[in-house]
Amino acid sequence: MSNTSGDNISDGIKVSDKVLNLQKDARSLFTVANPDAVNLGQGFPDDPPSDQIKEIVARAIAVPECNQYAPPKGRLHTRQALANAFSPLFNRTLDPETEIIVTAGANEGLTDLFAAFIDHGDQAILIEPFYDQYVNMSSREWKIDINELRSKITPKTKLIVFNNPHNPTGKVFSREEMMEIGAVAQEFNLLIISDEVYERYYYAPDVFERIATLPGMWERTITVGDCGKTFGTTGWCVGWLIGHKDLIKASLSAHTRIVFCVNSPLQEAIAILFEEINQKEYFDRQISAYTSKRENLMSTLSSIGIPYTIPQGSYFVLANTSKIQIPQDYEFPKDFINAPKDFRVCYWLAKEIGIIATPPSEFYSPEHKHIVEDFIRFAFCKSNETLDLAAEVFNKLKPYVKKC
Amino acid sequence: MSNTSGDNISDGIKVSDKVLNLQKDARSLFTVANPDAVNLGQGFPDDPPSDQIKEIVARAIAVPECNQYAPPKGRLHTRQALANAFSPLFNRTLDPETEIIVTAGANEGLTDLFAAFIDHGDQAILIEPFYDQYVNMSSREWKIDINELRSKITPKTKLIVFNNPHNPTGKVFSREEMMEIGAVAQEFNLLIISDEVYERYYYAPDVFERIATLPGMWERTITVGDCGKTFGTTGWCVGWLIGHKDLIKASLSAHTRIVFCVNSPLQEAIAILFEEINQKEYFDRQISAYTSKRENLMSTLSSIGIPYTIPQGSYFVLANTSKIQIPQDYEFPKDFINAPKDFRVCYWLAKEIGIIATPPSEFYSPEHKHIVEDFIRFAFCKSNETLDLAAEVFNKLKPYVKKC
Repeated sequence: MSNTSGDNISDGIKVSDKVLNLQKDARSLFTVANPDAVNLGQGFPDDPPSDQIKEIVARAIAVPECNQYAPPKGRLHTRQALANAFSPLFNRTLDPETEIIVTAGANEGLTDLFAAFIDHGDQAILIEPFYDQYVNMSSREWKIDINELRSKITPKTKLIVFNNPHNPTGKVFSREEMMEIGAVAQEFNLLIISDEVYERYYYAPDVFERIATLPGMWERTITVGDCGKTFGTTGWCVGWLIGHKDLIKASLSAHTRIVFCVNSPLQEAIAILFEEINQKEYFDRQISAYTSKRENLMSTLSSIGIPYTIPQGSYFVLANTSKIQIPQDYEFPKDFINAPKDFRVCYWLAKEIGIIATPPSEFYSPEHKHIVEDFIRFAFCKSNETLDLAAEVFNKLKPYVKKC
Repeated sequence: MSNTSGDNISDGIKVSDKVLNLQKDARSLFTVANPDAVNLGQGFPDDPPSDQIKEIVARAIAVPECNQYAPPKGRLHTRQALANAFSPLFNRTLDPETEIIVTAGANEGLTDLFAAFIDHGDQAILIEPFYDQYVNMSSREWKIDINELRSKITPKTKLIVFNNPHNPTGKVFSREEMMEIGAVAQEFNLLIISDEVYERYYYAPDVFERIATLPGMWERTITVGDCGKTFGTTGWCVGWLIGHKDLIKASLSAHTRIVFCVNSPLQEAIAILFEEINQKEYFDRQISAYTSKRENLMSTLSSIGIPYTIPQGSYFVLANTSKIQIPQDYEFPKDFINAPKDFRVCYWLAKEIGIIATPPSEFYSPEHKHIVEDFIRFAFCKSNETLDLAAEVFNKLKPYVKKC
């Protein structure tokens, strides 16, 4: 901070090392480059909220207590609704008093977990799938290397962060893969943080299973969820943690200090929503709508000759950009000249073609960014109008795609 | 965690030291002791939301983009409304792009600041006013000892946490006191975190001033606010940080990682609210209503012979409990036997009299808890019906108050 010359800021007020080391958030870079571009970048739906949603929020806000502090662990009504919704999915009766916390979104939930389980100097392992081959493949072919995972474990390793369905690859882990990860966690006595925010998005014939339901895993797994993905309300910032009561107790201590509590009106709305929908019908209909959105985007990419990974889950498609030929003399802005290739492709695509995508190397550690540098991520959680418009705009990309 | 015998939890999944060292949150203990007690404990209003509030939230939720991710720094509309509302109060034109962040409540704002400015081993100093005398005094008589403050500073000291109006004492710091604190901050090049969540609650003849507006202080002060106190909507969890752009930039990096963003519908509602009220009229009317609530509670305490501190600001009264005689043979539950005196008084008052108060030693560090152990805190941010009911219930306390 002290290097801002000509500034009044005192030289000695030093920013903490952890903040100095943070990278810039990439999510807004490309919108700025071209505000009129079709946005397939950030994973949020652009459909308007349903009348049901609007009516439920109006009901929640009219309850006086829903405008005041919720208990740190969340409104009982919300925890009860979550217990009812998730007990069958976890094959156990979840106790809303001890096994569930409502968080200010999945991101805050993850912050709670790092605060609760990681001390200064401790290590967390993030699983980063890599691919075996390039051209139109299923996300099943993104692999993890269990030997590499084992080789990363040290006496300071405390936990493994696992994401399933996986963003950005769209991979849904098989039971066998999860058994292997679970065996490593058991051998080295590690906690598993299972980020399952895309749990409601998986596509036949693949089926999503929860690592917490595998033998011996309940006691060492905390599952992270978020209403934003589940119900398409990413701006509500209501999420949850589900796990063994001792793990949840530690997480609650951290959560209470980090945010104290979570916005009451929208957690009440989530409770009402879970209770008033027919869950099976609702989520079946959602999967069917998203299966067709996935089809729409994949056929657009096929028609212009761009290879991609067929996602088993999530609402993202990873497209391979090695056939896209950006003019050699194209002048990138200063910030992008030394950026990873996927950042440069995303910039050019936003600015010159009019499509916003997300650079997947954002999701990988510095030493592994090269694994996904040849890809860019498109979100298909968009209205059919947006996807159809995208199909039109993508035609402008065709002249730049190498034929082979 | 590993000491939970008979439990399945693996021995090696160790909770972080920082979470192990956290104390239990006291706020719910007394409600559990007597669910029917009149609640003057936690500082939230029990009035129902106004029709204006309900209508504004309905409008916010109907805007599609208000249901999706807000930018990490907050919706532009909200930052603009905050800049307009606060620029005159800070005597400067606040830039909504660089000098304001919307947070998930003041608590999360404080978490951002500790993450942004405190490294492992660094120190923060919390100012804890102490009193000079006991009986019916103004909160002006809660003092800070500048020499003690100076004596606590080490080379690892990074910042001072300042709270004005002060919870739990109700003190509003004078310009002179703030100049002294500011001089120390300047001498040792420290950051000031000024928690001003009660900024809209101060009582004639006292006037609240902001430490950030004193000469030389803007560059080293971040001010923390919260809609929950300002508008009586503690459950909305929308707050803000205001400060010099370099300080805000570092805070935003931390904030983006801690929660990513803040619930959109309620931050939109706050923007509309600030814009559509006549702010002078609205807050003048609120102060006048709270002046009369303060009067109501103080006259109740006077009538039963309990001394108290007259608050200059906030919506709390600190009552001195040294005249309350709890029967010598009273049997406290196990958890309270070794608790600080204010915790025991609060338990007895909830259970036997039917009034919930807050033990102020919660707000002091372990070595300073004794300063406030003879006090308990009552909130008067309650409906007139609640305050009148409290007056009735307080009569049951009279036989236990020593006459002198």
